[in-house]
Amino acid sequence: MIPIVSIIGKSNTGKTTLIEGLIREITHRGYRVATIKHNRHGFEIDHEGKDSWKHRRAGAHLTVIASPEQVALIEDTKKDYAIAELRDRYISEVDIILIEGYKKNPYPKIEVYRKEISGQPLATSDDNLIAIVTEDPVTVDVPRFHKEDIVEITDLIVDLFLDQQ
Amino acid sequence: MIPIVSIIGKSNTGKTTLIEGLIREITHRGYRVATIKHNRHGFEIDHEGKDSWKHRRAGAHLTVIASPEQVALIEDTKKDYAIAELRDRYISEVDIILIEGYKKNPYPKIEVYRKEISGQPLATSDDNLIAIVTEDPVTVDVPRFHKEDIVEITDLIVDLFLDQQ
Repeated sequence: MIPIVSIIGKSNTGKTTLIEGLIREITHRGYRVATIKHNRHGFEIDHEGKDSWKHRRAGAHLTVIASPEQVALIEDTKKDYAIAELRDRYISEVDIILIEGYKKNPYPKIEVYRKEISGQPLATSDDNLIAIVTEDPVTVDVPRFHKEDIVEITDLIVDLFLDQQ
Repeated sequence: MIPIVSIIGKSNTGKTTLIEGLIREITHRGYRVATIKHNRHGFEIDHEGKDSWKHRRAGAHLTVIASPEQVALIEDTKKDYAIAELRDRYISEVDIILIEGYKKNPYPKIEVYRKEISGQPLATSDDNLIAIVTEDPVTVDVPRFHKEDIVEITDLIVDLFLDQQ
């Protein structure tokens, strides 16, 4: 089972910047990373006028775009898949999955916290909180990091989820 | 096994327009269509600056973008997957797959032919040719259609690949 780590926090706390740093550092250490980004309000991908875009517009349930270096897929869904369903359906051949955009989920969590934006931390009472990333004073029972501590946060992730493999 | 039909022909013969028409008509009859578009020279998808784009740029091997209505996936590949591999890996819950951009392949083929562009038809001697779509005089052993004969071409596809299911 591919381990999943969830990055949580309100908008504009720096979640995406943290994930970018973690992807770079974990990849640098030789592990393969997948990400899942959840957009509650839908998303646009592909470019108007491209063949794949035309296929979808004409009603294709699913379109695959293939090339020697990458493959893309766009698929209609009847529901908002649970994270485990997305993993089982779409993800293989990676060592870890980082997810962003799911507020409630049962996976280990790293919270990015900024007092002026966040009010109280979202996950202080969450059993699955493994770390908090903040520049502000907080009282939590988990390791606390600054946003530039990418190496140290990666150490924690590797220690908890990747070293045993 | 989901049936695969390949639309072939040189550039600017009208392949994409034909596929769009077929997707609409086959979907209209209650079947689910997937498409595979092959781009030998690679492709761009996603939009610069989006989180998913940042994930990939940071080195993510695979990125899933999920929403209640659609899911997209962009994945690095080590090779140009064969059509059957793409089907097995990425496609389910559809009735038929239409493919475009693969010149040589072992699947039933519909050739879109324009004399001024194509020279000789590509597939006259191809055992898997099931139809030719052209406005020009050609000598072939398979049914010949005009480009507006979407209903009739769909009849053929349904008859050959979908009626038995």
